[in-house]
Formats: sequence, structure tokens, C-alpha cells
Amino acid sequence: MASSEPNPASQPDQAQISKSAAKKEAAKKEKERRKAEAAAAAAASAVNSLSVENDPLAANYGDVAFSDLQSKEVTGRKWTEIGSLNESLKDRMVLVRGRAQTVRAVGKKIAFVVVREKGFTVQCVVTVKPDEVSPQMVKYVNGLSRESHVDIEGVVSVPDVAIKGASQQVEIQVRKIYGVSRAVPNLPINIEDAARSEEEIQKALEAGEQLVKVNQDTRLNYRVLDLRTPANQAIFRIEFEVADFFGQFLKKEGFVGIRTPKLIAGSSEGGAAVFRLDYKGTPACLAQSPQLHKQMAINGDFGRVFEIGPVFRAEDSFTHRHLCEFTGLDVEMEIKEHYFEVTDIVGRLFVSMFDYLNEKCIKELNAVRQQYPFEDLKYLRNTLQLTYEEGIKMLQEDGMEVPPLGDLNTEAERRLGQLVFNKYGTEFFILCRYPLSVRPFYTMPCYDNPVYSNSFDVFIRGEEIISGAQRLHEPQRLTERAKACGIDVSTISTYIDSFRYGAPPHGGFGVGLERVVMLFCALNNIRKTSLYPRDPQRIAP
Amino acid sequence: MASSEPNPASQPDQAQISKSAAKKEAAKKEKERRKAEAAAAAAASAVNSLSVENDPLAANYGDVAFSDLQSKEVTGRKWTEIGSLNESLKDRMVLVRGRAQTVRAVGKKIAFVVVREKGFTVQCVVTVKPDEVSPQMVKYVNGLSRESHVDIEGVVSVPDVAIKGASQQVEIQVRKIYGVSRAVPNLPINIEDAARSEEEIQKALEAGEQLVKVNQDTRLNYRVLDLRTPANQAIFRIEFEVADFFGQFLKKEGFVGIRTPKLIAGSSEGGAAVFRLDYKGTPACLAQSPQLHKQMAINGDFGRVFEIGPVFRAEDSFTHRHLCEFTGLDVEMEIKEHYFEVTDIVGRLFVSMFDYLNEKCIKELNAVRQQYPFEDLKYLRNTLQLTYEEGIKMLQEDGMEVPPLGDLNTEAERRLGQLVFNKYGTEFFILCRYPLSVRPFYTMPCYDNPVYSNSFDVFIRGEEIISGAQRLHEPQRLTERAKACGIDVSTISTYIDSFRYGAPPHGGFGVGLERVVMLFCALNNIRKTSLYPRDPQRIAP
Repeated sequence: MASSEPNPASQPDQAQISKSAAKKEAAKKEKERRKAEAAAAAAASAVNSLSVENDPLAANYGDVAFSDLQSKEVTGRKWTEIGSLNESLKDRMVLVRGRAQTVRAVGKKIAFVVVREKGFTVQCVVTVKPDEVSPQMVKYVNGLSRESHVDIEGVVSVPDVAIKGASQQVEIQVRKIYGVSRAVPNLPINIEDAARSEEEIQKALEAGEQLVKVNQDTRLNYRVLDLRTPANQAIFRIEFEVADFFGQFLKKEGFVGIRTPKLIAGSSEGGAAVFRLDYKGTPACLAQSPQLHKQMAINGDFGRVFEIGPVFRAEDSFTHRHLCEFTGLDVEMEIKEHYFEVTDIVGRLFVSMFDYLNEKCIKELNAVRQQYPFEDLKYLRNTLQLTYEEGIKMLQEDGMEVPPLGDLNTEAERRLGQLVFNKYGTEFFILCRYPLSVRPFYTMPCYDNPVYSNSFDVFIRGEEIISGAQRLHEPQRLTERAKACGIDVSTISTYIDSFRYGAPPHGGFGVGLERVVMLFCALNNIRKTSLYPRDPQRIAP
Repeated sequence: MASSEPNPASQPDQAQISKSAAKKEAAKKEKERRKAEAAAAAAASAVNSLSVENDPLAANYGDVAFSDLQSKEVTGRKWTEIGSLNESLKDRMVLVRGRAQTVRAVGKKIAFVVVREKGFTVQCVVTVKPDEVSPQMVKYVNGLSRESHVDIEGVVSVPDVAIKGASQQVEIQVRKIYGVSRAVPNLPINIEDAARSEEEIQKALEAGEQLVKVNQDTRLNYRVLDLRTPANQAIFRIEFEVADFFGQFLKKEGFVGIRTPKLIAGSSEGGAAVFRLDYKGTPACLAQSPQLHKQMAINGDFGRVFEIGPVFRAEDSFTHRHLCEFTGLDVEMEIKEHYFEVTDIVGRLFVSMFDYLNEKCIKELNAVRQQYPFEDLKYLRNTLQLTYEEGIKMLQEDGMEVPPLGDLNTEAERRLGQLVFNKYGTEFFILCRYPLSVRPFYTMPCYDNPVYSNSFDVFIRGEEIISGAQRLHEPQRLTERAKACGIDVSTISTYIDSFRYGAPPHGGFGVGLERVVMLFCALNNIRKTSLYPRDPQRIAP
């Protein structure tokens, strides 16, 4: 795979090398350094090809020719993942591919490259050695731009002291190194800057040093770079585990995963917050939730269904917890007697999910914590369930004025979360029996008092993540409630008709995937848990 | 849970009862019979409440009051699933909930109700018995409309002869029966009609009997009823297993499940077939695939990713295999040397998926076969891989005129599928090295001949289900190819820029979930494998 075209190696000036060698370089000089690096890299591509041509060891390094990356050959060589490098591989020759996260030469005879793959890093050492590593190779390495991909062959060694700048506690003594893909010398954001914790920035500031802070918007503008930080690598692996656990738990409980359409005639569940479009001449919109179609799946005899899919909200909400497109985790199920059959699933599902995350995602949770420190979520074995009335009472007793039949605002939710935590020691609880007037038209009223409903919300750390309820399954009552809520029933006639063909009592709930991860890890912004977030001001990248 | 309001029972006339009892009733009389049934049901609600009031056993039957279905009480009673009823439960009292699929009285003392739950059925027998079952109860049962939900308590018995009209080979001797939810007496389509095979209709026709045939469009108009057939219950469980297997297999191979946005600025991958909409004042469209965002996730260091989510195509394709919204199963992965690393995943993934379905979904596959007979898919342990040139040669040798550098049309694909099956004995194979000109701009050309590309399609039973390729990972070449394909590169600048920050060689593929199930089961229309299909003429239900 080595290039047949010898690669011009760099001849950076001594000043640049010793500057790179300075271990604790002040961040204010970072910008100048990068400029200098870029200049060196540019120079590198023009000069000193002669020295490489004269190098008998030239085959051991250089940029891979593009044609060699076009599926030319299957060699069957074994590759090792950087995350799996450990002491058991001592003295073994390994082959890795990763990004040159940092490159640092010490004099003309040694260069260090920290190579990263999927958030894991290993320190690779290039030392001039007769018949193996030439000074030209060290120069070549020093000319590599950060974030370029390299293939490295080398021997695993175990240093006497702990390695601070890399996740793996072994080094690779490099024998061969090839550039696979070059990054531009000036990156819009630096991975080290993006990976820095607020705490580190503060500490440095107290020591008189101003480190670069990458703000949320800049991160999202260059999301592909931002995603490479250990915290982001971990967040989206945790998010995958949450979604996967959700599906696997429900499958074991007899649920069928379904796919409902996102293109809907009319106006979904009503309201202004829909994205409208033209569907082959028919007015249509994007589904605000799979609500109506998952209920129809119940009327279609599937018994218990779930869906993991995108939901669309055109709301102008500029908060830390609203997105215009997010992932809905939706459940709908027949109930035999009581909607507590639904809250029972909610409780068991989430308690076992939290257990699973705490047990199986230790590495990932630690990577998040490294940049965004947080306390473990406190939750009970048996999920606490309070009534709305009890919640209102707790708030009133705490001196808060809350309308007994209105909805809870963000402040009231947070306060209630705190009161519940103080009293019961849990940050995860269910609040049930909401006033009917604050719930959607398809919600089942309580049998004993139609002012309340068979509905519930679920909270993590004082923020709502789940809404659920028993649904009205009787077409006449459903029609009346829809009308009372100002919905044009002609737009939902297929849905209402589906209840005329025999409809079982049923209930369900919906969860926002990004919110679960955000709140489990106590992150401050939902944009941190959406791969490419969409909000009223952002539809890119 | 029994109603406190006694329910008026029916007094159908003798003619109607004996008519119902006629076991092989001609379908042309079906309509009249249903009319009569409806009339009887209507009459039932008006007359003879007196007889129920005089019945000391009246508590054993009747419609459940609505308030009793509003989560009034948690009794802790044990429910049995109809699909789990078998001889081991002989003489045991069970409690089931299901739909009255058919109701048939024999005289005034016996009624049979076939009760269905999730596609499984059991015959329930109501026989007048002193101190247990009154004649009024038989009348009540006979007045139940088809597809109504009922709760039944009774004793399991094992008849001497095989039961033909139900899936479970036991009966329930009914002690108590309560109506939970009434279906309208005249359903737009009959489940028995919707469940009938073409073969059965043909056979009856040959015997001079015309059975009702429900056409595809009518099925979709009343999808909630159509979904209740055993074949549809099975199809969507198989579809869930396919999607689930896909995710679980890839998870074991180190892939991360991701969620890319469906709302895209600009025009997705270009072309006219996009749904456009206004996004807060910005022109936007619905993603035609997660292509660009999954590649950006690779440039964001996730190594191996997959996504299961909706994709949107505004094409005017009125075929048996195109939908305007379907479920994409998408994969993208770094490759070390060759795109055969991708086809290797494809082969292993699908062979093990087919094995899994054949082993774990026997019941479901049989239910599909009952209505839509099909032969098992033939596939090899090691997936056959041919080049496009080899495919063209086979077609030409068979006398077909095919342009050597054009795309294969539907007819050519089918013919090739047949030729491959004749020669290699497989209905599942990979065709690789397609002409570059028929592939998207981001496809990697072959190293040895840029007329061809590092791409592939995969076929099941002569129809394409998967497209995949190595991608161009070098920004300059990518830009040139995009321009050459007439794409306005300014609309995909973030995507192209993502390759400037270092991009590993990578490849991937996309599969249509609905097509996999359609072709595995040799179904004739993709609308049969989409829960609520969307095509150019349909956006409902």
C-alpha cells in the first residue's frame, strides 16, 4: 500500500521544532503556532524531495498514492484497533490506522505522534535507528498535519511511567508510517480545544493562561470535527445503547417494532407547529408524533407496538431542550384493566436501562464526565408514582403559587423535582392523573372525576421526558373530545373510523431520545445529544 | 369489570339462526346474511331486556360499562394469550380477551364464538347449563357483532377431532362473557374475505361458487381491518425481525446506530424527486437517503455506522416496488483496503438473517404462505459475487441485447436473476464493478479503469434490493465528480468540506426494508410490506 511516488518530506526550521517541543505551550500562542505549522507544511511539499530519493529506507514512509486507496488489493493483513492496545501485546508488531492528533518532534531524531481512533489514543514514537528509521522519516512525520489519517506499523512497548497524553497505556515504536488522507493544515476548530472542560479553562484562567473555548454554535458549524472529541464519541454511543436497550426490552415484553409514515395528509394532531408541504398536489405535513398511526396499529390487532423514529415540530422554541426534529421513542399497548399497566412498563424499562448504562457504558460515561462532570442519576428500584394533586400540594406547601388545574411550567417542574428528591431521594419519578384540560383530545378522562385524566408525565432531574396516558377508545366520545379541542374531525376521519371496527382499551407513551441522554448525563443542552441538531435557526450541517 | 347496567340481549328469529348454522354457506348469500345479522343486532338492542332482568345468571354476561374501562380498578387477575392456549391447560379455568371473529348459534342452547387475538384463534362454546349458562346468555352471544372485543372466562377442553376453523387445538367452555368494545355491524371489509388466498377463490370458482375478493386498494383504504388477517399479522412481525436482526448483527460487528436529520437544506442529493418544504423561511427538502450525513459521521470518527429510518422519494413511480416513503437500512464503514470488506458484511449479514428468519419465524412464514404461497429463498453459504461485465456477458450469451455501459432495466435484472439461478443455484447474489456513469457522484472509480466503479448491487429473486460502493474520500476529486454530474456544489459545501479535515477510505450500502420482506416472501407488491404505504396517489390512512 506504500506509495510508488516518493513523497516530498518537510524541512521545518529548528525554531519551529523546538517551539513544538515546548510541552506546556500557552494557548494564546496556539494560533501563531498553527500558522507556522501551515507554512512548514506548505514548504514541505516543495523542498527536499532529493533527500527522500537518496534515502534507502524511503519505502518505510510517505503518502499513499490515491490509486492504492481505490480497492486495488486484498492483502489479508491484520489490523489492530487502537482502543484494544494494551500490555498483553508487548513486543508484538501491530498495524493501526488512525488520525495524527498531535505531532511533535524533539530535535531531528525523535518524533512523537499521538494517533487517535474512535476517541482512543496511543502515543507512537519515531526514533532514528540504522536500517529501520531514517532522519528523513522523522522529518516526514513532523510534516504531517493534525487530523490526517496515517497507517502505522510498529512494535508495542510498555513505558515505565504512566502516559498522560493518550488513553492507551502502551506506546508503538514506529517502523513504518504512511499518510492515507491529509487534513488541511488550518482546521477551523482544534480537537483539543473542543475536548476541553469548562473546569480546565477556569483553572488555566486562574493561573493567568487563556485557553481556547469553542462555543456551542461553532461546534455545530464544524460538527464533523466536534464529533471527534472523546465526549462526543461517547455521547452518541450511549445514545445508541439507550435506543437499542429500549427496543430489546420491549421486544422481550412482546412488543412489535413498527414504522409509521412521516408524511401525513392534513395537519397531523393539529396545532400550528407542523411543517407543511405539497404531496403530489395534496396538502400534507410531517408527523408531529406517531400517535394516531400507532393507535391504529393497536386497532389493527398488534397488541403491543413501539416505534423509534424522527418526529417533527415546527415550534419556535429557543430553549436548551427543544429541537425541530428529534427521535421519538413511542409505545402503545392494549391494557386489560388500568393504565398503570403502562406506567409499570415505563418504570421497569427505565430502571433497567439506567442499570444497564451504569454497568455497560462505564468507559463512555467517564469520557463524558471528563469534559462535562455530572453526578450519577439517583433512582429507586420501584419507581415513585405521585398524583398531580399530590405534586401541586407539595409545591403549594413549599410556598409556590400554582394553578391546581393548569399545566406545570419549567420552573414548577424543576422545583417539584427538587422537593421530590429531598423527600423521596429519587430524581426519576412519575406524576399521574393530570388535569384533562391540559392533555390532548385522545386522553381518557378519569372514571371518578372527568376534570382529571388517566395520564402521566415522567421526570428526570426535574425535567419532563415522557408523556403518556390511557386513550379514549370509543369513537363517539373521541369525536366529541376532538371537537371540544377545536380539531376539524374530517381531517382525522380514518383515525376515528378505526375505532368503529372494535377497539380495545389501550394506552401508551412517548419519549424523546435526545432528552433521555441529555438528562441522564446532566448535559446543559439538547444540541449536545443530537448528531446534527435542527432548531428554528439551524438546518445545517 | 362486568357492567352494572344490564345489557339487552337479542332474540334473533329461527330462520336467521339456522341460516348461520349452515356450515358451507355460499358467498353470494354472504351479503344478505350480514344484512340480516345487522338487523338482528339492531333489534337486539331494543327488545327483551326483560328476559335478562329476570335471569338470575345475568351477572355472567353483558356489555361492560364504559366507566369500568376507565382504569377503575387493578384486580390482579391473570390473563392468558390465545396464542398460548394448548392441551397442557386442559380443565383449567382461563381468562382471555379477543375479538369475536365469527359468532354462530345452533338452536337456542348452543353458540360458538371464534375469538381472535394477534392472529391466533380459539373456538369458544356457550352451552346452556343449569346454574351456569342461561338461554339468555346464548342469545346475548349470538347478538355480538363480528370484530367486537370480548372478555371470556371458561374451562379449556380438548375435543376428540381436529378443529378446522381456529388456530388453537383446544376449545373454551364459556362460563362468563362480557362485551368490551362493539364493532359496527356492517364492516367495510370482512376479515375472512381479506384473509382468503387466490387459490381458494379459484377453487371455489371452479366449483361454481364466487367468493369475495378484496382488492389491494380496498385493503389499504380499510388498512386497520386488513392488518388483522393472519398473513398481515405475520408480515409485520417478520419485518420487525428483519430490522431488528439487521441492527443486532451490525452492533456485534462494532457498528454504532445513528440518527441523521430528515430535514435538509437545499436539495438532498439532487434530482427532481425530492419533497420540498419551507423551513422557517429557508428552502428545505426531505432527505432521499442518509447518504451525506452517514458519510459525515464517518469523517466524524464513528468508524462504522448504521441507520434505520424513513427515506423520502417524490418519484412518480407507479410500480409494484416503489414507494414515496420507505424504511432505509443504511450502512457506512471505514475500509482498510478494499470495498470487498463491505460486500463481505453484506453477504454474512443477509445469509445469517435468512437463516434466522427460516428458523425463528416458522409460524409467521407459514401464516404468510397460507394466503400467499411461496417457495423458500435459495441462497448459498458463501454469497456469489459476479462482476457487471460477467453479468452482461451472461445476458448477451442468452441472446439479450444490453448496453455494456448502461444500467440494467427491470427485465434484464429478472433475466439475469434467472440465468444466475440456473447456473449457480442461488436467488441471492452480488453484482459488482458497475459502470461509473450509472452511479452517484460520490462513487469511487476503479483504480484500473475509471469507466467502472467500486460499486455493487445485490439481488433477491431477480430484483435489486441493495446498492453500495466505496466512496470518493478526497475533496478535490469529489468536487469534480459532483460538478460533472451537474450538482451545484455550493449546496453540499459542508459535506465536501468534511473531507478536507482528513477522511478515511470508506464505503457502505443502503437497503429497502420493505423490499427485503417482499422478496424474501415472494410477495407481488411492496404495499403489502408497508404498514401504511405512501405512493404518488396515496397519503392515507
